[in-house]
Amino acid sequence: MVGSVIAADLASEGFEVAIADVNPASLRAAGKRAGPRAALVETDLSDPAALRSTIEPADIVIGALPGWLGYRALAQVVQAGRNCCDISFMPEDPLALDAAAKKSGATVVVDCGVAPGLSNMLAGVAAAELAPCRSIEIAVGGLPRTPRPPFNYKAAFSPADVIEEYTRPARLVEGGKVVVRPALSEVEPLDFAGVGTLEAFNTDGLRTLTRTLNVPTMKEKTIRYPGHAALMLAFREAGFFAEEKVAAGGLAVRPLDLSRALLTRAWTYAEGEEDLTVMRVVAEGTRRGAAARIAWEIEDHFDRATRTTSMSRVTAFPAALVARRLAAGTIRGPGVIPPEHLARTPGLVDEIVEELRARGVRIEREG
Amino acid sequence: MVGSVIAADLASEGFEVAIADVNPASLRAAGKRAGPRAALVETDLSDPAALRSTIEPADIVIGALPGWLGYRALAQVVQAGRNCCDISFMPEDPLALDAAAKKSGATVVVDCGVAPGLSNMLAGVAAAELAPCRSIEIAVGGLPRTPRPPFNYKAAFSPADVIEEYTRPARLVEGGKVVVRPALSEVEPLDFAGVGTLEAFNTDGLRTLTRTLNVPTMKEKTIRYPGHAALMLAFREAGFFAEEKVAAGGLAVRPLDLSRALLTRAWTYAEGEEDLTVMRVVAEGTRRGAAARIAWEIEDHFDRATRTTSMSRVTAFPAALVARRLAAGTIRGPGVIPPEHLARTPGLVDEIVEELRARGVRIEREG
Repeated sequence: MVGSVIAADLASEGFEVAIADVNPASLRAAGKRAGPRAALVETDLSDPAALRSTIEPADIVIGALPGWLGYRALAQVVQAGRNCCDISFMPEDPLALDAAAKKSGATVVVDCGVAPGLSNMLAGVAAAELAPCRSIEIAVGGLPRTPRPPFNYKAAFSPADVIEEYTRPARLVEGGKVVVRPALSEVEPLDFAGVGTLEAFNTDGLRTLTRTLNVPTMKEKTIRYPGHAALMLAFREAGFFAEEKVAAGGLAVRPLDLSRALLTRAWTYAEGEEDLTVMRVVAEGTRRGAAARIAWEIEDHFDRATRTTSMSRVTAFPAALVARRLAAGTIRGPGVIPPEHLARTPGLVDEIVEELRARGVRIEREG
Repeated sequence: MVGSVIAADLASEGFEVAIADVNPASLRAAGKRAGPRAALVETDLSDPAALRSTIEPADIVIGALPGWLGYRALAQVVQAGRNCCDISFMPEDPLALDAAAKKSGATVVVDCGVAPGLSNMLAGVAAAELAPCRSIEIAVGGLPRTPRPPFNYKAAFSPADVIEEYTRPARLVEGGKVVVRPALSEVEPLDFAGVGTLEAFNTDGLRTLTRTLNVPTMKEKTIRYPGHAALMLAFREAGFFAEEKVAAGGLAVRPLDLSRALLTRAWTYAEGEEDLTVMRVVAEGTRRGAAARIAWEIEDHFDRATRTTSMSRVTAFPAALVARRLAAGTIRGPGVIPPEHLARTPGLVDEIVEELRARGVRIEREG
């Protein structure tokens, strides 16, 4: 879903692109989107030898793998000394590969989608521009364009990962310390001009930011149509997302297994059903001695011309734009670079924002 | 839960009462509530011979059995020619036993709790007083006194029966015809002075009323704290109340089985947790040539002195008050009498309402 959009974006500007996937149907679909210039490699990247031979001829590797494979594959890419940009949804800490990357000479930008990704870049800009930057609040969500009860939600990627987001405690930064709040807590309304009033609640999305930025207050919230958090809280509190088995109908059932099966069915986008992405990053602090506030509002829509989901677009474009700069040498390591550190290069994030706008992503900045 | 309150109510006025139950612990608890004058009979009433010998010495039989057993037992009581009043939550049509009751000489009042029960009596009064009666709307619910998120609900009796209420299509009367609407549909706000704004939605509660009263518009709705219907709709629409098996974690799981297990846990009252009952019956029509409206509002609370739940009180008292009248001969058959037909005897329902008030049930009538 995302890899093909990255490939298409790079191929359209003359990059020589090869797409690798284990699933022939996915590979064909990706090839169709990326165009005739993209080579297709049917291979199982969970096999280290296959991964090695696949990345061998590449100057830049872009990782868009499932979470269970992402870190392992990234470690191998780092070891092979390939420059890389990664958007795999991985539970591990990618900064742990920094020493290995410095040793092998690889420059690797990780967590390089929309959030984490673009959100980190903007947070990095705020932390660099405000002195000091006192707080950064990120809110982000992928939503169906037309909300349909009862869930008013569809999951563009993996419903199982969404359930995990509603379960895993959220790490926030308060008073300079990491604090933990339940997922789905502190629900607040949030207005978006083109969409209406939405709601935002705590989820565990800060990732590297809790350690890389010296900002005493930071949180990332997830955005949904109003009422969704209360609904999900009911499922969670009643035990429907639990992993401990429960006796039901003569079987020992893991509730999470059934909820994954049923919510995947309920949350899967219909063919052609349009989605949208909304994100807000608000930073407060001091600039030239005065209180200052920077607020970005991002809104993106399903692309009807190419039938590309907004969630694929906003995840793919930051990766494609960073990959270009790895190729051009304007992003330079070696080491593992979290996207917030791209803001250390003056003008770099502004350029990426400009190129996102050129691709139809609405990004407005105040302050 | 209910039988013991009926027994206590009758024993307190000198009736000779015997309580029969298959479960020794339930029987002991019922005996404790009913007092030393109640005899305790440990027996399995699903065994026809046991039922026969248990009811043999009784003048009046009161049925408060689980749904799967209620109708079968009632048929046997009818055949034995015993006068009876019944509150078993049975799926079958109790009026089907009318011919058998007329033959054996039994007088049987069925569906004799709060709703069905008291609601039918009041509907019967409205249908008798208004000429014609154009519409009757009943709304009723048992709720925890203190709503606690996320469900804001507890089930005083069987959570499985509550799920069934949220699943089974609701039969309403419109334009003199029975129409079917999905359960949980047509949610509307409803204010109760002592409780606040609640919500009411369609459920299948009219039972005998669809056939016994010649009123062209009738509906019965269930009352909950606001938001509950949307929550339950999400569970139902996503398939969590479905009976068809779903592949989950290598098993074929019936979602209803797991939901029963988890929601029973979530909805069970804690020891001493207080409940309340609210009901409204509104009838519209014509009286002496002018438009007329009768509205009853019923509110009842947990009894702290006797630690009796409101749901037990309001279900037990109508049965106990009808049993007294069967004993006194003021309710006379033979035949199966739905509670709405008690209104055919002038003053009878008013007397019952008065005695409910004497037991602390708030019942107000307007119009």
